[in-house]
Amino acid sequence: MTALSAPPPPKIRLFVDAPLAAGAAPALSAEQSHYLLHVMRAQPGSEVALFNGRDGEWRAVLVEAGKRVARLAVSTLLRPQRPEPDLWLVFAPVKRARIDIIAEKATELGVSALVPVLTRHTAAGRVNEQRLRSIAVEAAEQSQRLTVPEVFGYRPLDAVLADWPKERRLILLDETGGGQSVAEAFSGGAAEPAALLVGPEGGFAKSELDAIGGLAFASSIGLGPRILRADTAVIAALACFQALCGDWRSHPPSRN
Amino acid sequence: MTALSAPPPPKIRLFVDAPLAAGAAPALSAEQSHYLLHVMRAQPGSEVALFNGRDGEWRAVLVEAGKRVARLAVSTLLRPQRPEPDLWLVFAPVKRARIDIIAEKATELGVSALVPVLTRHTAAGRVNEQRLRSIAVEAAEQSQRLTVPEVFGYRPLDAVLADWPKERRLILLDETGGGQSVAEAFSGGAAEPAALLVGPEGGFAKSELDAIGGLAFASSIGLGPRILRADTAVIAALACFQALCGDWRSHPPSRN
Repeated sequence: MTALSAPPPPKIRLFVDAPLAAGAAPALSAEQSHYLLHVMRAQPGSEVALFNGRDGEWRAVLVEAGKRVARLAVSTLLRPQRPEPDLWLVFAPVKRARIDIIAEKATELGVSALVPVLTRHTAAGRVNEQRLRSIAVEAAEQSQRLTVPEVFGYRPLDAVLADWPKERRLILLDETGGGQSVAEAFSGGAAEPAALLVGPEGGFAKSELDAIGGLAFASSIGLGPRILRADTAVIAALACFQALCGDWRSHPPSRN
Repeated sequence: MTALSAPPPPKIRLFVDAPLAAGAAPALSAEQSHYLLHVMRAQPGSEVALFNGRDGEWRAVLVEAGKRVARLAVSTLLRPQRPEPDLWLVFAPVKRARIDIIAEKATELGVSALVPVLTRHTAAGRVNEQRLRSIAVEAAEQSQRLTVPEVFGYRPLDAVLADWPKERRLILLDETGGGQSVAEAFSGGAAEPAALLVGPEGGFAKSELDAIGGLAFASSIGLGPRILRADTAVIAALACFQALCGDWRSHPPSRN
């Protein structure tokens, strides 16, 4: 059977804040305009896919390529909005290069929020939330996500735990090898809302582990016999969660 | 009950080529001597853990700190040798920074061999096998492995497939979203020997996918609805394999 197929979705994807609907003319930032016009060398008539985390993904066409500003016109809906799994990543900041990896990979792996926390053994005095957000936007564009993970403000772990929404399961990645195996812990399938918690390179302090151990919504998992770096542990645990409890039984948009 | 506990294992771990046994005096390379004496500032009497991939892990003591060369004396066995899961990673080289991530993370996640292959859409003309090996050694030291993954020479994919050992299952990471879900594909548990195969950023050519699809030992898995970068896909799939089919039901040595 032969069917008339829709034109392929545009290769360039951009996240915008503005509402999206047929006929809309969302503004691009100066950086996005530069990227579109001078890096990707888009011309009037070039197509772009736009998403804003609320209104789905839309096809848009470049109608004016000024020196500094690109103007787009939104035409048709490519994909309706759908949520990512409700999965937070709570993490102690590590060295710059590895925190970039964590933000990029966690976005590709579908987290809904990045929650940086200060722990006893955390080395990083501050967190550049704007940078985390930029990395998350780029990874969302590249990975075909329809949302960008929220980036929470940097707060002490004990403050975050004191405010914790009790219905959200907190899963500690225990690098000392305690906790259930991943296969056991995630065998039950869907378990949202959830959060994975990973400590700094030096691990959690004993007092922190004791405090977490006493929380009714918390449990811990071990990630096998080898010691993983914090960024590896994050990616590994997120992948296992999505494969067993999340949305990995579905396919990329090109298959749907 | 109180037990006399063994002294903690040394913090510094080094991989050596020489045989290890009580009384052995293995040579360190110039780089290792420099690292031990000038970076870690080890003094005569400082302890080091040594492994060579064959004889288990041994406690050794620094007996002479010369200007350029460190001399060690091996004392007692810390851990007997045990194999990693027999899991190869077959991968098309990607950009330098991401190939470094792949080598580091795959080692932490317990692969037994790194197998770089040239595909139709591979961008990298050559592969620095020595560099891959160095990264693997460092990640093995850091992750408490007792082996270092073998690094195979860079060869065309079709040559590697033509020589393929038929008893080794080949699992293609299909970024187009084809293939079984991870949960289904890995639900059977232990399935060694195995190999994961990941393509370049541009994906495999149709002719390559067709050729792989015709191999009796090959199958393919999908990694969910988001498009993952090659390095993310590698880490994600290795973690799922180890959690469900590999050795993630065991614990780090400090727990054993």
